Amino acid sequence: MLSADLIAREALALIDAEGADVFSLPRLAARLGVKTASLYNHLDGRAEVIEGVRRLVVEEMDVSAFDTLPWPDALAAWARSYRDAFARHPHSIDLLATTTISSPATLSMYEAVVTALARGGWPQERLVTALTSVESFLLGSALDLVAPPLMIDPAGHAPRVPVLAAALGSAVGGDKAGRADEAFAAGLDALIRGLVAQLAEFRGE
Amino acid sequence: MLSADLIAREALALIDAEGADVFSLPRLAARLGVKTASLYNHLDGRAEVIEGVRRLVVEEMDVSAFDTLPWPDALAAWARSYRDAFARHPHSIDLLATTTISSPATLSMYEAVVTALARGGWPQERLVTALTSVESFLLGSALDLVAPPLMIDPAGHAPRVPVLAAALGSAVGGDKAGRADEAFAAGLDALIRGLVAQLAEFRGE
Repeated sequence: MLSADLIAREALALIDAEGADVFSLPRLAARLGVKTASLYNHLDGRAEVIEGVRRLVVEEMDVSAFDTLPWPDALAAWARSYRDAFARHPHSIDLLATTTISSPATLSMYEAVVTALARGGWPQERLVTALTSVESFLLGSALDLVAPPLMIDPAGHAPRVPVLAAALGSAVGGDKAGRADEAFAAGLDALIRGLVAQLAEFRGE
Repeated sequence: MLSADLIAREALALIDAEGADVFSLPRLAARLGVKTASLYNHLDGRAEVIEGVRRLVVEEMDVSAFDTLPWPDALAAWARSYRDAFARHPHSIDLLATTTISSPATLSMYEAVVTALARGGWPQERLVTALTSVESFLLGSALDLVAPPLMIDPAGHAPRVPVLAAALGSAVGGDKAGRADEAFAAGLDALIRGLVAQLAEFRGE
């Protein structure tokens, strides 16, 4: 039985399998074995399908730490679950990073984040700035998950870039996946340390 | 007269005008008024065109500060020029974020960054981690430049997400572009403060 939820699940499965570039309502309808026009009995159009896909990915992100941990630790826990969710659905990143967010599930996630930041002492007018700066790092890190195994390849040019070549050869983490994990953990740690320092300044501490 | 450089310039102009999704060698050839096969007289294929596009965007990024400023200030100056370059070519972000980097111009830019970090005291095995964490933030911030004017839109759901709605209404920066600028500046400041703190720990200071 066709429903908005089933359509969203199949849309995510299609994007996971074939990438966001080829995603279209006609392809989705073909996958569901229905005519494209039938989709419109259940939703208003492409934007609503994308919001449904976003809801499914967002449901895999975990805001529960905001109820129990201080905001810097909770922010780190949420950030790790955010990256893990996109790691399971890497092709959805481009699509979701550049479309307007309006679904209740996604808005509720952001509400949990900014409420915890406000409770931690962040001024109201700085909440969106702090949230956006963290999310920029998360989206960029998620993009790293869809990058090729060797993102920077000096190859024959290594003698001309000796510091870079040596750094790549000795980098903590080992292979691309390990290096990406290290860069994510280190960047998140640095960003949150910096946010703690900024908040102390805002509060005149 | 067709050349690899002219092909790269027209490829970037095509991506700027129509987006990366529709970029293809046949479309590029049509734009240049030649047959697709003619392109192969000047380059090996699509990957080489993309590296040419990357070189043009990278040439707009400025590493000169690494010669004169302490690494945290130079990193911030380079980061701002990096974002400015992608702001001028927003459609190139997806394409460049997920393809292997091998052109001498781009490798030279990274060599300048990691050389300055190493001179600043960063351990060799941490250089790639530090570079990647900053670049993740830069790419995510660049994605924000192609996001819709109102990325988060509570609309009719505002009563259910009151903290978020109030935060959006009072955010520093004002409109979407202003808020994006604020988030970039604040996130970059936080990230670099955190990196300075991490380096001090690595060095046992």
